[in-house]
Amino acid sequence: MIEDMSKKSPNSMLKLRRVAIDTYHENVAYLHRNCSLYRAEGFQALSKISIMANGSRVHAVLNVVDDEHIVSEGELGLAEQAFAQLDMEEGQLVRVEHAEPPASMDAVRRKIDGQRLRLEEFQQITQDIIDNRYSKMEMAAFLVSCAQGGLDREEILHLTRAMIDTGEQVHWDAPLVADKHCIGGIPGNRTTMIIVPIIAAHGLLMPKTSSRAITSPAGTADTMSVLAEVDLTPQKMHKVVSKTQACLAWGGRARLAPADDILISVERPLGIDSEGQMLASILSKKLAAGSTHLLIDIPVGLTAKVRHMNQALRLRKMFEYLGDRLGIHLEVVITDGGQPIGNGIGPQLEARDVMQVLENDPDAPADLRQKALRLAGRILEFDPDVRGGQGYAIARDILEDGRALKKMKAIIEAQGAVDADFTPAKRMTEICAASDGVITSIDNYQMAKIARRAGAPMDQRAGVDLVKKLGAHVKKGDVLYRIYAEFPADFKFATSLAEENSGYTIGSEDEVPQFYMEI
Amino acid sequence: MIEDMSKKSPNSMLKLRRVAIDTYHENVAYLHRNCSLYRAEGFQALSKISIMANGSRVHAVLNVVDDEHIVSEGELGLAEQAFAQLDMEEGQLVRVEHAEPPASMDAVRRKIDGQRLRLEEFQQITQDIIDNRYSKMEMAAFLVSCAQGGLDREEILHLTRAMIDTGEQVHWDAPLVADKHCIGGIPGNRTTMIIVPIIAAHGLLMPKTSSRAITSPAGTADTMSVLAEVDLTPQKMHKVVSKTQACLAWGGRARLAPADDILISVERPLGIDSEGQMLASILSKKLAAGSTHLLIDIPVGLTAKVRHMNQALRLRKMFEYLGDRLGIHLEVVITDGGQPIGNGIGPQLEARDVMQVLENDPDAPADLRQKALRLAGRILEFDPDVRGGQGYAIARDILEDGRALKKMKAIIEAQGAVDADFTPAKRMTEICAASDGVITSIDNYQMAKIARRAGAPMDQRAGVDLVKKLGAHVKKGDVLYRIYAEFPADFKFATSLAEENSGYTIGSEDEVPQFYMEI
Repeated sequence: MIEDMSKKSPNSMLKLRRVAIDTYHENVAYLHRNCSLYRAEGFQALSKISIMANGSRVHAVLNVVDDEHIVSEGELGLAEQAFAQLDMEEGQLVRVEHAEPPASMDAVRRKIDGQRLRLEEFQQITQDIIDNRYSKMEMAAFLVSCAQGGLDREEILHLTRAMIDTGEQVHWDAPLVADKHCIGGIPGNRTTMIIVPIIAAHGLLMPKTSSRAITSPAGTADTMSVLAEVDLTPQKMHKVVSKTQACLAWGGRARLAPADDILISVERPLGIDSEGQMLASILSKKLAAGSTHLLIDIPVGLTAKVRHMNQALRLRKMFEYLGDRLGIHLEVVITDGGQPIGNGIGPQLEARDVMQVLENDPDAPADLRQKALRLAGRILEFDPDVRGGQGYAIARDILEDGRALKKMKAIIEAQGAVDADFTPAKRMTEICAASDGVITSIDNYQMAKIARRAGAPMDQRAGVDLVKKLGAHVKKGDVLYRIYAEFPADFKFATSLAEENSGYTIGSEDEVPQFYMEI
Repeated sequence: MIEDMSKKSPNSMLKLRRVAIDTYHENVAYLHRNCSLYRAEGFQALSKISIMANGSRVHAVLNVVDDEHIVSEGELGLAEQAFAQLDMEEGQLVRVEHAEPPASMDAVRRKIDGQRLRLEEFQQITQDIIDNRYSKMEMAAFLVSCAQGGLDREEILHLTRAMIDTGEQVHWDAPLVADKHCIGGIPGNRTTMIIVPIIAAHGLLMPKTSSRAITSPAGTADTMSVLAEVDLTPQKMHKVVSKTQACLAWGGRARLAPADDILISVERPLGIDSEGQMLASILSKKLAAGSTHLLIDIPVGLTAKVRHMNQALRLRKMFEYLGDRLGIHLEVVITDGGQPIGNGIGPQLEARDVMQVLENDPDAPADLRQKALRLAGRILEFDPDVRGGQGYAIARDILEDGRALKKMKAIIEAQGAVDADFTPAKRMTEICAASDGVITSIDNYQMAKIARRAGAPMDQRAGVDLVKKLGAHVKKGDVLYRIYAEFPADFKFATSLAEENSGYTIGSEDEVPQFYMEI
């Protein structure tokens, strides 16, 4: 390929132009229909092209333009994402040619045919993905091939290693770097923001990076951003950690397992559940972040991601298998995923719950407090000096005597406090019980969907605030939850969604599901 | 959904603007980042939106714009494809909201999970696809789910019916409407343009619609367009057929099985081979086109689409099973796919071969003539008045006494003759034998790739002209084939590809593969 370029005619050079279109995770290039290069090369709309200059190269999907205001005949337009990647000035000359399909698509096709892939093949695939050689549909093909035929545990190990290898890795100068992860699906489940200050107050290192919500109403990073800056440079993050033993930052800056971020941007909207992808995604991020000890929380419930106990147990075995081979100390707890945790759903409402717990407010949601303490207890027991079974009591002491709150304040201070404002969004409606009885189910999906429609996570103050939880006795007309929204369209849309299906079922006492707590 | 609209606030109305960007088969919409609707609704880049006006609705992927020249804050921009679908004037008010993910993606996810789908589910999927509710990646997910787990023959039947039902259907006032189809992969294989005039001259109806090349160097429509107009309105096509008993038109206008066209635009670039998709694609197009009798040509060869005889036989059974249930008289011939058919590869060079055969030119490629006569013979035997085994002789007579040529001229005249010019492209290079010996293999893929790189099918006169075929004795330096290109970049790229790998193998006489002809 590289050799051929010298043979190319000079008319393959075009002037670079930045096109102010945000194409999200996809690189898009724009050529004018009368561009001599387009005519000569026989490019077709949506074919992929390769753009080179100063030794760097980006790949982009081609759109053809008939408007000089966007690009003229001698120009190559690049949408924001692609332009940023090329790292050049407008007006500089770039070379354009047909992009070959990524070589690793051969491996994807073999996977579609039901074959096993080797480590090198996963490495080629992840490298091609972070080099932007994969189109969205090629990524979808890869994801479905992994979801359908499935990856065996050896392949998941390969994929995890490949995702780690193709990104940056953080190293902490500490023998024990604690981390936790919840496989998700439970709205309001913001235990991390309580656990991290407890663990750090005990003296263990817990530099936590989290994602922002993609399809959920709030991620830990979204919720923390209500209280503090979360978009930290790696330098800043290290400074915060050396000062406070912890951080609660957004992980998007650090290029940890970047292939995973790109794949997730395709996987989530598709709604494909690939167990192998999920395992590789979680573990690659944790290992790249330098964690040595990891607690995995698997909530089980009929409207949770994991619906049955046997599935949770199988996942646990897989985590254990992979953790051992990847050299990370890993434990799995299976928790109750039968309803949202805490009361708030949405960044600000969840931040409020977290602060109530840390402040030992008597109104703090008891389930969030309990769950956070139990998980924190398990992490504390990673410490060789903590006797098995003593973790919970230590965690509770740290919370109750205010050390956790103090640590949280220190973390917020170190990251950069923002003006936390707990006034909810200005539009509010109450969803009420349609009959007398007992709450027998709360649909996690539906509650998350209503909160999203209300504007969360983009509008921090939007979301849902639960008043009644499972097992509560209600009278007809009692408030079940409140919906908060900033904007009229969102407010109406969320309200009509809740009116269609409130997410709550009211029945009799004996229908209330029995909880099982962590195992 | 429809009811909710009335509740929407008026600020969800935006002024429609046409954005002169050709996004090929994907609908793209552009909103300014400061658009109040974008802020309020919390749209994210690449989320799908739904645009409504005057009772019609289109779906589009959202790109966010920071340039008033493309769209301003109160406007909604639509790329060419989406704009054309909405069928409105610029400046009219449109309503914009979040598009729900297509409901039929649930069925796709079940397919990914390995479940069988019912007719109604395939109908929902194809309907959502033609309504542009599927993104490229959702289509890729559907295609891979069908390729990997595979469709059983009942599911293929469902998919075929669903693809027919979601498009237009043509009806011909004739008891026998003949058609043929080759499953492809053999460059130069332009038998259709010889068969159609033979069949029509005999008196059977053969209104042939064909596709343009997507990944090959020429389709029948591309080749015919060298001689005549092929982009006919349905009215014009009927006129041509009533005049000449036949046509050789591009099928893209008629909206026959439109879901198939859209899926192919994703499937081809992905290079996924889904047998079920292929069967459904072929049969839905033929049935929608009103064909009653169909001959299927399956070329078998090491560099053909079908590589082994047992695979071809399995395909034949599938075609027969489906044809019987769909009520089309169908026969399958398995032919030799060991090398390109004819000499030319590329629209103009292939048109030249076709005309040489029709003109009984002694230089006409014998293999193309033979294959066309054999296939035409089989189609003639669909005629109840033709005795089994007599088809070939009748076809040969029609060709040799000039009736086929006369009919071809009538078809060209009726469709609208174009100034056929057989001067090849101005740049030419010869690829020569590197040693003495016998041609023992010619790689169909490589020859097609070289022809495409040379500019075919976009540049009609570009392509490859074969001089030696399988079994030919050559001396070192003898010309194997010539490459023709219009433009310097294409010329150099095709030449260097051929220099890397000529596609030819030279060996000894006993290595020449034995042919098998039609079965």
